[in-house]
Amino acid sequence: MVKQITIQTNGRDEMIDITNQVEAYVKEQGVQEGIVYVYCPHTTAGITINENADPDVKHDMLMRFDEVYPWEHPKYRHAEGNTASHLKASTVGSSQPVIIQNGNLILGTWQGIYFCEFDGPRTRKCYFKTIEG
Amino acid sequence: MVKQITIQTNGRDEMIDITNQVEAYVKEQGVQEGIVYVYCPHTTAGITINENADPDVKHDMLMRFDEVYPWEHPKYRHAEGNTASHLKASTVGSSQPVIIQNGNLILGTWQGIYFCEFDGPRTRKCYFKTIEG
Amino acid sequence: MVKQITIQTNGRDEMIDITNQVEAYVKEQGVQEGIVYVYCPHTTAGITINENADPDVKHDMLMRFDEVYPWEHPKYRHAEGNTASHLKASTVGSSQPVIIQNGNLILGTWQGIYFCEFDGPRTRKCYFKTIEG
Repeated sequence: MVKQITIQTNGRDEMIDITNQVEAYVKEQGVQEGIVYVYCPHTTAGITINENADPDVKHDMLMRFDEVYPWEHPKYRHAEGNTASHLKASTVGSSQPVIIQNGNLILGTWQGIYFCEFDGPRTRKCYFKTIEG
Repeated sequence: MVKQITIQTNGRDEMIDITNQVEAYVKEQGVQEGIVYVYCPHTTAGITINENADPDVKHDMLMRFDEVYPWEHPKYRHAEGNTASHLKASTVGSSQPVIIQNGNLILGTWQGIYFCEFDGPRTRKCYFKTIEG
Repeated sequence: MVKQITIQTNGRDEMIDITNQVEAYVKEQGVQEGIVYVYCPHTTAGITINENADPDVKHDMLMRFDEVYPWEHPKYRHAEGNTASHLKASTVGSSQPVIIQNGNLILGTWQGIYFCEFDGPRTRKCYFKTIEG
């Protein structure tokens, strides 16, 4: 069963830790061995796995991504004005798979799963799906 | 069954919407619930999921990726001269998974699946594979 | 069965070809059709698929990633000083799936699977997992 969750974002750029929700879904499904997919159905947001300890990592990543993919650029044509969000989304990716072993996600010690908002604040959706095996 | 499709690209950098081909493959396979993988076997091309509405998004993304990963650089050593293509390929990624629910891809409203050419024009291959579950 | 391998890295930034280890794991598992996931449980390293022929590609990629995500930046706050590594990890991604067909990985001619060290030298772990189907 695919699960859809709703995420309310609060900033233009924001990394929201959804690891607990992914873990709860895997427990609900009762999957012991397999893969869980975390999928973002938006084109100006994405999913990444990165550090869950020092919040300054999120600050620094969002700051530098915004310099590399600036909000304004003389050569952008997209009238909606959020080209940077699309670039950031394709850079981090629309989804991430995580391995399930003995009913648990096998993330590294410092890894958290992040929903990455790149054009907020908005009400967003995120899908979870397990595959057993 | 893995399916291989052929894609003729026309520009050096190009994003080609292959969503319809992925959907047709999933119907052919008759998979109701699972994952479909879209895989690029080339190192100077990749797969991404991004906006399917305004073509200016593709223009802007390819333009800015080319500034971030320029075609010429005094420190590049790779004699073939296409280092930028390799950088872009690793940035967007070699593959994307999409969730199948009730026999359909559950893409977001504005999401399309793109084969990204970064060193064309060439005749390219792309693989599709489903996993049920 | 998930397999964990250990990788000793030797440089701060390094791309280590682990294709042979992934292939050996797939043979061990005896999986004929499916997917193998290559997963990095670290937040300052990642996995990518790119060229396995000219080593200058690796040089150029690591050189340019380091310019795009510089080691030092006046606006970085992360006290550990390795923000660049986190940015590079999210750019290439924490994992890569590869399709298995007739018991073999179907990589492209020039594709190798790389463990990407972005904050070495360190002793790292990498997980492999197959899903049949």
